[in-house]
Amino acid sequence: MTVSKEVSDALCPQRLVLEHVTSRWGTLVLIELLDRSYRFGELRRAVGRWGGREVSEKMLTQTLQTLERDGLVHRDAKPVIPPRVDYSLTELGREAAGQVRALALWTEDRLEQVEKARRAYDAARETRFRAA
Amino acid sequence: MTVSKEVSDALCPQRLVLEHVTSRWGTLVLIELLDRSYRFGELRRAVGRWGGREVSEKMLTQTLQTLERDGLVHRDAKPVIPPRVDYSLTELGREAAGQVRALALWTEDRLEQVEKARRAYDAARETRFRAA
Repeated sequence: MTVSKEVSDALCPQRLVLEHVTSRWGTLVLIELLDRSYRFGELRRAVGRWGGREVSEKMLTQTLQTLERDGLVHRDAKPVIPPRVDYSLTELGREAAGQVRALALWTEDRLEQVEKARRAYDAARETRFRAA
Repeated sequence: MTVSKEVSDALCPQRLVLEHVTSRWGTLVLIELLDRSYRFGELRRAVGRWGGREVSEKMLTQTLQTLERDGLVHRDAKPVIPPRVDYSLTELGREAAGQVRALALWTEDRLEQVEKARRAYDAARETRFRAA
Protein backbone atom coordinates (compact mmCIF):
# COMPACT_ATOMS: atom_id res chain seq x y z
CA MET A 1 0.00 0.00 0.00
CA THR A 2 1.61 3.23 -1.09
CA VAL A 3 0.95 6.58 0.50
CA SER A 4 -1.49 8.41 -1.76
CA LYS A 5 0.16 10.97 -3.99
CA GLU A 6 -2.87 13.25 -4.24
CA VAL A 7 -1.78 14.60 -0.88
CA SER A 8 1.17 16.32 -2.47
CA ASP A 9 -0.76 19.56 -2.74
CA ALA A 10 1.25 22.40 -1.19
CA LEU A 11 -1.38 23.02 1.46
CA CYS A 12 -1.82 19.33 2.23
CA PRO A 13 -2.83 18.94 5.87
CA GLN A 14 -1.68 15.34 6.04
CA ARG A 15 1.89 16.17 5.26
CA LEU A 16 1.79 18.83 7.93
CA VAL A 17 0.77 16.22 10.49
CA LEU A 18 3.74 14.07 9.49
CA GLU A 19 6.02 17.08 9.84
CA HIS A 20 4.57 17.88 13.27
CA VAL A 21 5.03 14.37 14.71
CA THR A 22 8.53 14.05 13.24
CA SER A 23 9.80 17.52 14.12
CA ARG A 24 12.82 17.74 16.43
CA TRP A 25 10.84 18.76 19.50
CA GLY A 26 7.58 17.14 18.46
CA THR A 27 9.13 13.68 18.60
CA LEU A 28 10.61 14.25 22.04
CA VAL A 29 7.43 15.77 23.48
CA LEU A 30 5.39 12.81 22.23
CA ILE A 31 7.87 10.31 23.66
CA GLU A 32 7.97 12.00 27.06
CA LEU A 33 4.19 12.34 27.33
CA LEU A 34 3.80 8.65 26.58
CA ASP A 35 5.16 7.96 30.07
CA ARG A 36 2.98 10.41 31.98
CA SER A 37 1.44 13.89 31.95
CA TYR A 38 3.73 16.84 32.60
CA ARG A 39 3.58 20.44 33.67
CA PHE A 40 5.34 22.86 31.34
CA GLY A 41 8.52 23.30 33.35
CA GLU A 42 8.98 19.60 34.00
CA LEU A 43 8.38 18.79 30.36
CA ARG A 44 10.91 21.39 29.27
CA ARG A 45 13.56 19.83 31.52
CA ALA A 46 12.69 16.26 30.46
CA VAL A 47 12.79 17.09 26.75
CA GLY A 48 16.01 19.01 27.21
CA ARG A 49 17.63 16.05 28.96
CA TRP A 50 16.66 13.58 26.26
CA GLY A 51 17.37 16.00 23.49
CA GLY A 52 20.80 16.86 24.86
CA ARG A 53 20.21 20.54 24.35
CA GLU A 54 17.85 23.09 25.85
CA VAL A 55 14.51 23.73 24.26
CA SER A 56 13.47 27.34 24.63
CA GLU A 57 10.16 28.16 26.33
CA LYS A 58 8.95 29.69 23.10
CA MET A 59 9.81 26.63 21.02
CA LEU A 60 8.22 24.24 23.51
CA THR A 61 5.10 26.41 23.64
CA GLN A 62 4.83 26.41 19.85
CA THR A 63 5.35 22.66 19.71
CA LEU A 64 2.69 22.00 22.34
CA GLN A 65 0.23 24.34 20.63
CA THR A 66 0.83 22.63 17.29
CA LEU A 67 0.30 19.16 18.74
CA GLU A 68 -2.75 20.32 20.71
CA ARG A 69 -4.26 21.82 17.57
CA ASP A 70 -3.69 18.52 15.74
CA GLY A 71 -5.61 16.75 18.51
CA LEU A 72 -2.60 14.84 19.81
CA VAL A 73 -1.97 16.68 23.07
CA HIS A 74 -4.48 17.70 25.74
CA ARG A 75 -3.91 20.88 27.69
CA ASP A 76 -5.60 20.83 31.06
CA ALA A 77 -5.69 24.17 32.86
CA LYS A 78 -6.84 23.44 36.37
CA PRO A 79 -8.97 26.10 38.14
CA VAL A 80 -6.70 26.36 41.19
CA ILE A 81 -4.50 28.93 42.88
CA PRO A 82 -1.68 29.03 41.95
CA PRO A 83 -2.58 28.12 38.34
CA ARG A 84 -1.62 24.67 37.16
CA VAL A 85 -1.51 23.38 33.60
CA ASP A 86 -0.96 19.72 32.76
CA TYR A 87 -0.12 18.37 29.34
CA SER A 88 -0.99 14.82 28.34
CA LEU A 89 -1.60 12.74 25.22
CA THR A 90 -5.03 12.14 23.73
CA GLU A 91 -5.84 8.70 22.36
CA LEU A 92 -4.80 9.94 18.94
CA GLY A 93 -1.60 11.27 20.44
CA ARG A 94 -0.83 7.93 22.08
CA GLU A 95 -1.11 6.25 18.67
CA ALA A 96 1.39 8.65 17.13
CA ALA A 97 3.67 8.63 20.16
CA GLY A 98 3.79 4.83 20.23
CA GLN A 99 5.10 4.75 16.68
CA VAL A 100 7.58 7.55 17.29
CA ARG A 101 8.90 5.83 20.39
CA ALA A 102 9.23 2.54 18.48
CA LEU A 103 11.39 4.40 15.97
CA ALA A 104 13.49 5.86 18.80
CA LEU A 105 13.93 2.39 20.32
CA TRP A 106 14.94 1.07 16.89
CA THR A 107 17.72 3.68 16.68
CA GLU A 108 18.92 2.49 20.09
CA ASP A 109 18.79 -1.12 18.98
CA ARG A 110 20.68 -0.57 15.72
CA LEU A 111 23.18 1.95 17.01
CA GLU A 112 26.13 -0.41 16.75
CA GLN A 113 25.42 -1.11 13.07
CA VAL A 114 24.98 2.56 12.36
CA GLU A 115 28.26 3.46 14.06
CA LYS A 116 30.03 0.71 12.15
CA ALA A 117 28.65 2.12 8.89
CA ARG A 118 29.79 5.62 9.86
CA ARG A 119 33.33 4.48 10.57
CA ALA A 120 33.47 2.70 7.21
CA TYR A 121 32.08 5.74 5.40
CA ASP A 122 34.51 8.13 7.07
CA ALA A 123 37.46 5.80 6.43
CA ALA A 124 36.58 5.52 2.74
CA ARG A 125 36.34 9.30 2.41
CA GLU A 126 39.66 9.70 4.22
CA THR A 127 41.26 7.25 1.77
CA ARG A 128 39.85 9.08 -1.24
CA PHE A 129 41.01 12.41 0.16
CA ARG A 130 44.52 11.20 0.66
CA ALA A 131 44.63 9.58 -2.78
CA ALA A 132 43.56 12.81 -4.49
CA MET B 1 10.46 -0.27 27.97
CA THR B 2 11.65 3.30 28.08
CA VAL B 3 14.28 4.76 25.85
CA SER B 4 17.51 4.88 27.83
CA LYS B 5 18.32 8.30 29.24
CA GLU B 6 22.06 7.86 29.18
CA VAL B 7 21.87 8.75 25.52
CA SER B 8 21.10 12.33 26.37
CA ASP B 9 24.73 13.30 26.02
CA ALA B 10 25.08 16.26 23.64
CA LEU B 11 27.11 14.23 21.16
CA CYS B 12 24.84 11.21 21.36
CA PRO B 13 24.96 9.35 18.04
CA GLN B 14 21.65 7.63 18.63
CA ARG B 15 19.71 10.85 18.86
CA LEU B 16 21.36 11.96 15.63
CA VAL B 17 20.05 8.84 13.87
CA LEU B 18 16.54 9.66 15.07
CA GLU B 19 16.92 13.21 13.79
CA HIS B 20 18.17 11.94 10.42
CA VAL B 21 15.31 9.51 9.84
CA THR B 22 12.71 12.02 10.99
CA SER B 23 14.08 15.07 9.17
CA ARG B 24 11.85 16.73 6.61
CA TRP B 25 13.66 15.34 3.59
CA GLY B 26 15.01 12.25 5.30
CA THR B 27 11.50 10.89 5.85
CA LEU B 28 10.48 11.48 2.23
CA VAL B 29 13.67 9.99 0.78
CA LEU B 30 13.24 6.86 2.92
CA ILE B 31 9.58 6.52 1.89
CA GLU B 32 10.35 6.92 -1.82
CA LEU B 33 13.28 4.49 -1.80
CA LEU B 34 11.09 1.87 -0.16
CA ASP B 35 9.30 1.49 -3.49
CA ARG B 36 12.38 1.23 -5.69
CA SER B 37 15.87 2.56 -6.36
CA TYR B 38 16.19 5.99 -7.91
CA ARG B 39 18.68 8.10 -9.78
CA PHE B 40 19.30 11.53 -8.29
CA GLY B 41 17.11 13.56 -10.66
CA GLU B 42 14.18 11.15 -10.45
CA LEU B 43 14.40 11.07 -6.67
CA ARG B 44 14.48 14.84 -6.49
CA ARG B 45 11.30 15.05 -8.56
CA ALA B 46 9.57 12.27 -6.61
CA VAL B 47 10.41 13.79 -3.22
CA GLY B 48 9.37 17.22 -4.44
CA ARG B 49 5.99 15.89 -5.57
CA TRP B 50 5.25 14.16 -2.30
CA GLY B 51 6.67 16.97 -0.25
CA GLY B 52 4.66 19.60 -2.14
CA ARG B 53 7.67 21.84 -2.45
CA GLU B 54 10.98 21.60 -4.28
CA VAL B 55 13.97 20.11 -2.57
CA SER B 56 17.18 21.80 -3.70
CA GLU B 57 19.95 19.67 -5.21
CA LYS B 58 22.19 20.68 -2.33
CA MET B 59 19.66 19.66 0.33
CA LEU B 60 18.93 16.33 -1.35
CA THR B 61 22.65 15.65 -1.69
CA GLN B 62 23.22 16.38 2.01
CA THR B 63 20.27 14.19 2.98
CA LEU B 64 21.48 11.28 0.86
CA GLN B 65 25.04 11.60 2.20
CA THR B 66 23.76 11.66 5.77
CA LEU B 67 21.61 8.56 5.25
CA GLU B 68 24.41 6.79 3.37
CA ARG B 69 26.83 7.54 6.20
CA ASP B 70 24.34 6.09 8.69
CA GLY B 71 24.24 2.90 6.63
CA LEU B 72 20.63 3.35 5.54
CA VAL B 73 21.12 4.25 1.88
CA HIS B 74 23.35 2.58 -0.69
CA ARG B 75 24.94 4.69 -3.40
CA ASP B 76 25.80 2.67 -6.47
CA ALA B 77 27.98 4.49 -9.00
CA LYS B 78 27.96 2.32 -12.11
CA PRO B 79 31.15 2.27 -14.24
CA VAL B 80 29.38 3.25 -17.47
CA ILE B 81 29.41 6.11 -19.95
CA PRO B 82 27.56 8.34 -19.37
CA PRO B 83 27.93 7.99 -15.57
CA ARG B 84 24.97 6.56 -13.68
CA VAL B 85 24.37 6.63 -9.94
CA ASP B 86 21.53 4.70 -8.31
CA TYR B 87 20.32 5.19 -4.76
CA SER B 88 18.61 2.39 -2.85
CA LEU B 89 17.94 1.29 0.73
CA THR B 90 20.14 -1.11 2.64
CA GLU B 91 18.49 -3.71 4.87
CA LEU B 92 18.92 -1.32 7.78
CA GLY B 93 17.39 1.44 5.69
CA ARG B 94 14.38 -0.72 4.84
CA GLU B 95 13.77 -1.24 8.55
CA ALA B 96 13.76 2.49 9.22
CA ALA B 97 11.80 3.32 6.08
CA GLY B 98 9.10 0.77 6.90
CA GLN B 99 8.46 2.48 10.22
CA VAL B 100 8.52 5.95 8.73
CA ARG B 101 6.10 4.92 6.00
CA ALA B 102 3.79 3.35 8.62
CA LEU B 103 3.74 6.71 10.39
CA ALA B 104 2.96 8.48 7.10
CA LEU B 105 0.12 6.03 6.42
CA TRP B 106 -1.18 6.64 9.95
CA THR B 107 -1.39 10.39 9.25
CA GLU B 108 -3.39 9.58 6.13
CA ASP B 109 -5.66 7.28 8.09
CA ARG B 110 -6.32 9.74 10.92
CA LEU B 111 -6.52 12.88 8.81
CA GLU B 112 -10.25 13.33 9.35
CA GLN B 113 -9.86 13.27 13.14
CA VAL B 114 -6.94 15.67 13.00
CA GLU B 115 -8.85 18.11 10.81
CA LYS B 116 -11.83 17.91 13.15
CA ALA B 117 -9.55 18.70 16.08
CA ARG B 118 -8.06 21.65 14.22
CA ARG B 119 -11.46 23.13 13.44
CA ALA B 120 -12.46 22.81 17.10
CA TYR B 121 -9.19 24.37 18.27
CA ASP B 122 -9.47 27.29 15.82
CA ALA B 123 -13.12 27.86 16.71
CA ALA B 124 -12.31 27.95 20.42
CA ARG B 125 -9.51 30.47 19.85
CA GLU B 126 -11.81 32.58 17.69
CA THR B 127 -14.39 32.59 20.48
CA ARG B 128 -11.80 33.60 23.10
CA PHE B 129 -10.50 36.33 20.80
CA ARG B 130 -13.92 37.81 20.27
CA ALA B 131 -14.76 37.62 23.96
CA ALA B 132 -11.59 39.49 24.93
